[in-house]
Amino acid sequence: MRVEIWSDINCPFCYLGKARFEAALARFPHRDAVEVVHRSFELDPSLGEDDHGQVVPIIARKYGISEAQAAANERGIGAQAAEMGLPYVTEGRDYGSSFGMHRLLHFARGKGREEQLLDLLYRANFGEEAPLFGDTERVVALAVEAGLDASDARAVLADPERFGDAVRAEEREAAELGATGVPFFVLDRKYGVSGAQPPEAFTQALTQAWGDRPAPLTALGDPDAAESEAVCGPDGCAVPGAVKDAGA
Amino acid sequence: MRVEIWSDINCPFCYLGKARFEAALARFPHRDAVEVVHRSFELDPSLGEDDHGQVVPIIARKYGISEAQAAANERGIGAQAAEMGLPYVTEGRDYGSSFGMHRLLHFARGKGREEQLLDLLYRANFGEEAPLFGDTERVVALAVEAGLDASDARAVLADPERFGDAVRAEEREAAELGATGVPFFVLDRKYGVSGAQPPEAFTQALTQAWGDRPAPLTALGDPDAAESEAVCGPDGCAVPGAVKDAGA
Repeated sequence: MRVEIWSDINCPFCYLGKARFEAALARFPHRDAVEVVHRSFELDPSLGEDDHGQVVPIIARKYGISEAQAAANERGIGAQAAEMGLPYVTEGRDYGSSFGMHRLLHFARGKGREEQLLDLLYRANFGEEAPLFGDTERVVALAVEAGLDASDARAVLADPERFGDAVRAEEREAAELGATGVPFFVLDRKYGVSGAQPPEAFTQALTQAWGDRPAPLTALGDPDAAESEAVCGPDGCAVPGAVKDAGA
Repeated sequence: MRVEIWSDINCPFCYLGKARFEAALARFPHRDAVEVVHRSFELDPSLGEDDHGQVVPIIARKYGISEAQAAANERGIGAQAAEMGLPYVTEGRDYGSSFGMHRLLHFARGKGREEQLLDLLYRANFGEEAPLFGDTERVVALAVEAGLDASDARAVLADPERFGDAVRAEEREAAELGATGVPFFVLDRKYGVSGAQPPEAFTQALTQAWGDRPAPLTALGDPDAAESEAVCGPDGCAVPGAVKDAGA
């Protein structure tokens, strides 16, 4: 069974939702048969590399609420994070373009280090005072902590072409699947769960999707194709009418 | 609807099967709703960069058949290619490691040029006399013909780390889906078609998979999550209990 999770480093409910999903997964009896795949989503793809800063004034300006309200929202999210045992700096977090981090996550995926890097990026952005956006060397240090090579990470971050199309392709896929916000959980491309719902909701979704998981592929066409039709395998090409292994 | 095609540049039936599938797709009434994705498969992943040469003696030695038999097989495949109007040099084709070409195809995928490059690689390997394997500059020239930048292509071919994990991940996926040879066609991860079957078999498979295509995602959890639960979207984060847009 495969669970895909669309999320953004800028999204506090993605940070919480990941922990809530993982709490449900840890108790799920078939957890070892569940493959979790992370997918890219930017809350604001129009942000440039240099558009970053403290979240409270940015959010207040962007959505037309007072800074007091934006700060109250942050404290509300912080209280929810505390319930999950997650650190949350309610006055310090940054907001900015996550495009480079998503590209780096794709690079990390190829090295089997995406999960580690994602957790470290969340922790750094939501749980630590130091700003994350705009500080390439801090991101590089997290990449190293996740097991990547510093110069590799620097090279990926410096070149927007690296994994840029991969990030955008996943963002398009989210839209095609009907996601308008994140976190967005997709189970076997059949069920969708939107938001940082309580662990019980994820338990229910995992249970339902497991009961309804895809069957093995159904073979169509000539069922004896591998013998009688035109297939190449590690033992050569099965040519119809030819004696493949004569003389072996 | 999505059709994934696992194939190898070394596999003549992949070359034929692609043309047969495309003939069926061109006549399929819902062809514009079919997304075709190419996947990597190596008939012989153990080959090194320098293990290449004329196919007839290599195949004869590898599978313990006489060179006359191997040559007869090639002529049999050539006759099938001719029926599809595909050029096939029955005595000249090369056999070698396709790992670098698969990596380059992944790079081309990100540039929207994979299909073009795959067709050119097939055409060069099966339809032209000049050897393809071991001639990096010939592969680079095909990449340029496909619309890629020569220095980009050279850089990808020179570094086995570039897209190496992506190639191997798709090869693992083929094994997980039960493929033992190629071409291997997977329709919506539900139906599998093995081999270069006749166009009618692909027409039948497309029709069946279309009739049975996946429904949109079923929402699980709190259906009003976007309003009442914790989601971040382009308009900010919906915080339960908070008045998000007061003051707007």
